[in-house]
Amino acid sequence: LSGGMFVHVRNMLDSMPTSDIALLLHSSPPKSRTVIWQLIDSSIQGEVLEELSEDVRNPILRSMTPEKVAEAAGNLDDDDFAEVLRGMPDTIYRKVLKSMDKRDRKRAERVLSYEEDTAGALMNTDTITVRPDVTVDVILRYLRLKGALPEATDYLYVVDKDEKFIGEVSLAALLTSQPVSLISEVMETDFEVIPATMEETEVASLFERYDWISAPVIDENGLLLGRITIDDIVDVIRENAAHSMLSMAGLDDEADTFAPIVKSTQRRSLWLGVNLFTALLAAFVSSLFESTLDELAFLAVLNTIVPSMGGVAGSQTLTLVIRGMAVGHVTQANQRWLMGKELAIGFYNGLIWAVLIAGVVALWKQDLMLGAVIAFAMMMNLIAAGLSGVFIPLMLKRMNIDPALAGSVILTTVTDIVGIFTFLGTATWLLI
Amino acid sequence: LSGGMFVHVRNMLDSMPTSDIALLLHSSPPKSRTVIWQLIDSSIQGEVLEELSEDVRNPILRSMTPEKVAEAAGNLDDDDFAEVLRGMPDTIYRKVLKSMDKRDRKRAERVLSYEEDTAGALMNTDTITVRPDVTVDVILRYLRLKGALPEATDYLYVVDKDEKFIGEVSLAALLTSQPVSLISEVMETDFEVIPATMEETEVASLFERYDWISAPVIDENGLLLGRITIDDIVDVIRENAAHSMLSMAGLDDEADTFAPIVKSTQRRSLWLGVNLFTALLAAFVSSLFESTLDELAFLAVLNTIVPSMGGVAGSQTLTLVIRGMAVGHVTQANQRWLMGKELAIGFYNGLIWAVLIAGVVALWKQDLMLGAVIAFAMMMNLIAAGLSGVFIPLMLKRMNIDPALAGSVILTTVTDIVGIFTFLGTATWLLI
Repeated sequence: LSGGMFVHVRNMLDSMPTSDIALLLHSSPPKSRTVIWQLIDSSIQGEVLEELSEDVRNPILRSMTPEKVAEAAGNLDDDDFAEVLRGMPDTIYRKVLKSMDKRDRKRAERVLSYEEDTAGALMNTDTITVRPDVTVDVILRYLRLKGALPEATDYLYVVDKDEKFIGEVSLAALLTSQPVSLISEVMETDFEVIPATMEETEVASLFERYDWISAPVIDENGLLLGRITIDDIVDVIRENAAHSMLSMAGLDDEADTFAPIVKSTQRRSLWLGVNLFTALLAAFVSSLFESTLDELAFLAVLNTIVPSMGGVAGSQTLTLVIRGMAVGHVTQANQRWLMGKELAIGFYNGLIWAVLIAGVVALWKQDLMLGAVIAFAMMMNLIAAGLSGVFIPLMLKRMNIDPALAGSVILTTVTDIVGIFTFLGTATWLLI
Repeated sequence: LSGGMFVHVRNMLDSMPTSDIALLLHSSPPKSRTVIWQLIDSSIQGEVLEELSEDVRNPILRSMTPEKVAEAAGNLDDDDFAEVLRGMPDTIYRKVLKSMDKRDRKRAERVLSYEEDTAGALMNTDTITVRPDVTVDVILRYLRLKGALPEATDYLYVVDKDEKFIGEVSLAALLTSQPVSLISEVMETDFEVIPATMEETEVASLFERYDWISAPVIDENGLLLGRITIDDIVDVIRENAAHSMLSMAGLDDEADTFAPIVKSTQRRSLWLGVNLFTALLAAFVSSLFESTLDELAFLAVLNTIVPSMGGVAGSQTLTLVIRGMAVGHVTQANQRWLMGKELAIGFYNGLIWAVLIAGVVALWKQDLMLGAVIAFAMMMNLIAAGLSGVFIPLMLKRMNIDPALAGSVILTTVTDIVGIFTFLGTATWLLI
């Protein structure tokens, strides 16, 4: 790119699908992004914008004039339009709204009236609605006049004269029915609808469960507002998965692998700060036993083993429970059963590794009692790890805190403290 | 369920969608599952089977006679059929094949001829094919005779007389074209096709990139074999996401929250064993400095802080890189740039936390030199963490080892050893 081959690159970009251009922008260091952006044809800039994550999009938006942003965003679908608007920093956002034409501004206000992460914010209004009292043949002729259908259309929606949603008719049904049939005869009425206020994760699990391609969105009075399509759901599923994984490492979910260094440093340092605090807490617990450590320096050598094993065992349980909650397998009804199960696993795993570590330590230092001490601490800590792995995410969820974000730091604090306390405590009691 | 309300439950199950029944089975402890299973109407048992994960499915299959399994599985779509067969333990599998009728056995052999996790194993053969030289009207009449379309049909596939795939025509095009048009006039020929040998993750990223609902699968000669639908892709995406998250905690990806205790204990203990080994390695590094620890017991108190911070910082980088590789943002071309960036972040974060920990320690023990020692170790370890976080997953990938599985254990071993070595080593050099 540096070699001045701009024309060549521009031609390449013109022939690429927008999703490939977005991928290219994501894989490029920040500096190259602005250069590439300027080479993209302005007619497709809106679509590319929509596919970018906030981190990549915002610097680009900042480099554009509000008029250009308004123009690029105006060509988007409702839900994508809303996503781009929501992603903008406030100052840009106001300027962009001002430079929009009246129709687009009205549309912007409507799509933004639904809260982020709800069905309303995810929907498009490009539905095709039909009345129940016309024949299939009339619809077929209407569609031929219309000439094209919105993307991912598998159903037309049937509404009464008040725009109330009363049923749906699939393209397949239109194609396979006799032309003289009435829509009311071929429509499906055992539909499921999505209220505009439903959370997007719930919408996604409905799509997954029923293998939908699109689904109608209604308001509280049963009036048809729009529809949600599977491509948006795929994005929701992917984002949620990324969210769980990244937030377990204390990372922002739109975190960009190629974000500027200062920004990345800031983001990650919060988590490191929390961890430093808990590490100091663990060090403080150790310091309670300083005289023991002074007398028996080898305890210091072994002091990291029990907390580390507890951390791993606890993380395993925590990960399973967080995932079980996300896919809906962990419910009120089976919490106690699960707690009992993890207690038992903690006990058995504790037993296995307690015996093993006791053997290793007894051989290493020719000291049976030291082996017994570390075995006891291992046992206690693995049981504590299993119980905390279930209890902590359930408790956090009840407190409306995201277990993926806060769970692992609280868990390792518990296993560190229990591990150090039982190991050094028992050692002080039995060995000194 | 224990109160003998079997009839009531059976009626409830009859009115539930199969996906809800699968969810119920996943949320139930193993014992209740067999009871619930027997209450499910045998006509839908096949569909429920397909929605279960292997862990839940296999015990159920073991409790059924091979004839029953053959019957239940025979009603499934090709790809679901293949998945159930592949999931079976070998002994059951052979018995089931024997008790199938000839047609089903042949079908089983064909779907199983494609490797697991490829497009071939994911596809269905329920395509509707048409010839290019007929009119839209002929197709419309043919579809009306046929009466129903396979699920998630958005395109009919156009093949020549040798079954070679030459184009596709959307239902929307059929509905909006003039009945007298020829299929060859309304079909799309700038299609993308999926070779049967393509990896399923690659198929999934194509679906995501182009917002497909279904796509044709062809063999090496361009002959149409079948099609893949979005619902199967949603499963692939969800499974891959779960796989990354679970394997970072050393868990099997079909791991069942409610698996029997003995099985869960076995599974998790492998990872705990690996961790015990690395913890002993870290302890061994500490033991090299035993005389230092003997002289200055407070070093033992602080010995966990630097490794812990390195572990957290390294995990953040590792998680970002693993995710970046999964979504295709990290490539050969930008590896060196990324390495440089993480080096810089390690440096800046190292600086921040080195200064902070030096202050805390200097105040705690009134010892400036001790503060300087821990600050230096912190700095070194955070830089090592950033570099390892990029280098380890890239190296593992080149060696064809799953970075999500092995990455975090190797990383923490590196940060533990570097952390302990620099801290105790510098302390020995400067303080003793």
